[in-house]
Amino acid sequence: VSAARRLARRSFRSSDRAFLAEGPQAVREAVDTPGTLLELFVTADAQARYPDIVAAAHRHGVPVHQASGEVLGSVSQTVTPQGMVGVCRFLDVPLDTALAAAPRLMVLLANVRDPGNAGTVVRTADAAGVDAVVLTDACVDVYNPKCVRASAGSLFHVPVVVGAAVEPAVAAVRAAGLRVLAADGAGPADLGDRLTAGALTGPVCWVFGNEAWGLPEQIRKLADEVIRVPIHGRAESLNLASAAAVCLYATTWAQRGPDGCRHEPDQRGGQG
Amino acid sequence: VSAARRLARRSFRSSDRAFLAEGPQAVREAVDTPGTLLELFVTADAQARYPDIVAAAHRHGVPVHQASGEVLGSVSQTVTPQGMVGVCRFLDVPLDTALAAAPRLMVLLANVRDPGNAGTVVRTADAAGVDAVVLTDACVDVYNPKCVRASAGSLFHVPVVVGAAVEPAVAAVRAAGLRVLAADGAGPADLGDRLTAGALTGPVCWVFGNEAWGLPEQIRKLADEVIRVPIHGRAESLNLASAAAVCLYATTWAQRGPDGCRHEPDQRGGQG
Repeated sequence: VSAARRLARRSFRSSDRAFLAEGPQAVREAVDTPGTLLELFVTADAQARYPDIVAAAHRHGVPVHQASGEVLGSVSQTVTPQGMVGVCRFLDVPLDTALAAAPRLMVLLANVRDPGNAGTVVRTADAAGVDAVVLTDACVDVYNPKCVRASAGSLFHVPVVVGAAVEPAVAAVRAAGLRVLAADGAGPADLGDRLTAGALTGPVCWVFGNEAWGLPEQIRKLADEVIRVPIHGRAESLNLASAAAVCLYATTWAQRGPDGCRHEPDQRGGQG
Repeated sequence: VSAARRLARRSFRSSDRAFLAEGPQAVREAVDTPGTLLELFVTADAQARYPDIVAAAHRHGVPVHQASGEVLGSVSQTVTPQGMVGVCRFLDVPLDTALAAAPRLMVLLANVRDPGNAGTVVRTADAAGVDAVVLTDACVDVYNPKCVRASAGSLFHVPVVVGAAVEPAVAAVRAAGLRVLAADGAGPADLGDRLTAGALTGPVCWVFGNEAWGLPEQIRKLADEVIRVPIHGRAESLNLASAAAVCLYATTWAQRGPDGCRHEPDQRGGQG
């Protein structure tokens, strides 16, 4: 229990390369992801309510510990872990591995500090069919319990890359044939215009910054293009996760035909 | 102070028809909205830091009360009201008034209970140029401090209608010439296909439900069409605010030309 409890802290997560999945939804995703669930803590109540999850854990040889609600509450960061907390192996992959899969749509979070925002972007990226999400070294820990929770299971679906420095990451993404588009409220290009102009049909990596600060000049300069989600009313800006949703879905419409299938990647430079 | 403090409760807000704007951003919007700011509580620190806001309050004849940080903290629901809390008159308008302005893009929230979600949708609606947001009687109070905060000032920009019953509201919206589109993850039509097919160019009112439950059958039946934001990956669903962002921006692209100007409303039935 104390080994699980210390995973509330980023430093211990990093040294153990393990994090907590809280609640039956997250634990179910964990047990369905081969080699991910290392240990399961469960109350008698939850064991009775989710027999399928507990049976799957046993089937995969995962140690299952019964614990009181009080003990579980002391491990969990969530208000209501619903009687179930799993210890999970880190899921992130090296950037090279993500790029070797010939991604056509990627997200790079340059400087996202709010775990709820980061998790929501991972969830939206999963929904939009994004191939990989990169969190640079200036971002919140993707294994932060609030981030895991906001991702609503998508952290177990989308390949994530963590700890990359932004400049070499952008260079590697571009070398893999993706166009690097920075999203910034003050960007010179309008997303709607770029969509209409057919500028989003090829492989794309979107770069998102910190909501409050936008993207620093140094990162905007790294991009092939800086694009804004246009503000038609009087709002000062969009919430980061909302802006990301709009950018990512606009790109899926550009990249996929009306039948929902992706176009052939014939625009990938030199990798056709 | 006690009159302001009681506005933390919905019942007192309703009887006083007043709510709290917390922090300089919200107070600035309030003082810029004629007749809205009724009273201002401010610390000596904040008075020195935001002299323009305090001067504007004086200019409009708004009573300004100096208060200690402790007293202000007891009024505010926010962790950091940054030394400034305003008492504001309710902003909502009758549905008839909103419809008389010939809206081309509206949002109807059928059953949104989370104040952060509701506020974020108001912010996104403002950004997308939505003409009015209706919150039915089953929704969270739009004047809830968390909702006001999540709207990031947009509550002061977008006309809001509150307390409407869903069936007559939908009927009135349709009678005003808007097509009623319900957003639901299980909807038969794909948003991308409807965009491509030109189905979003006329006046539209989007109906969003509760994130967890989606839209009940009774509300889906009221709509002209039930449309899903397609899930291309393995996510179970999108966050409500993210789904709303995608639906609203898709509609702005359909309704506006590449120059960002709205098309002439020549498709409004009988009102052109």
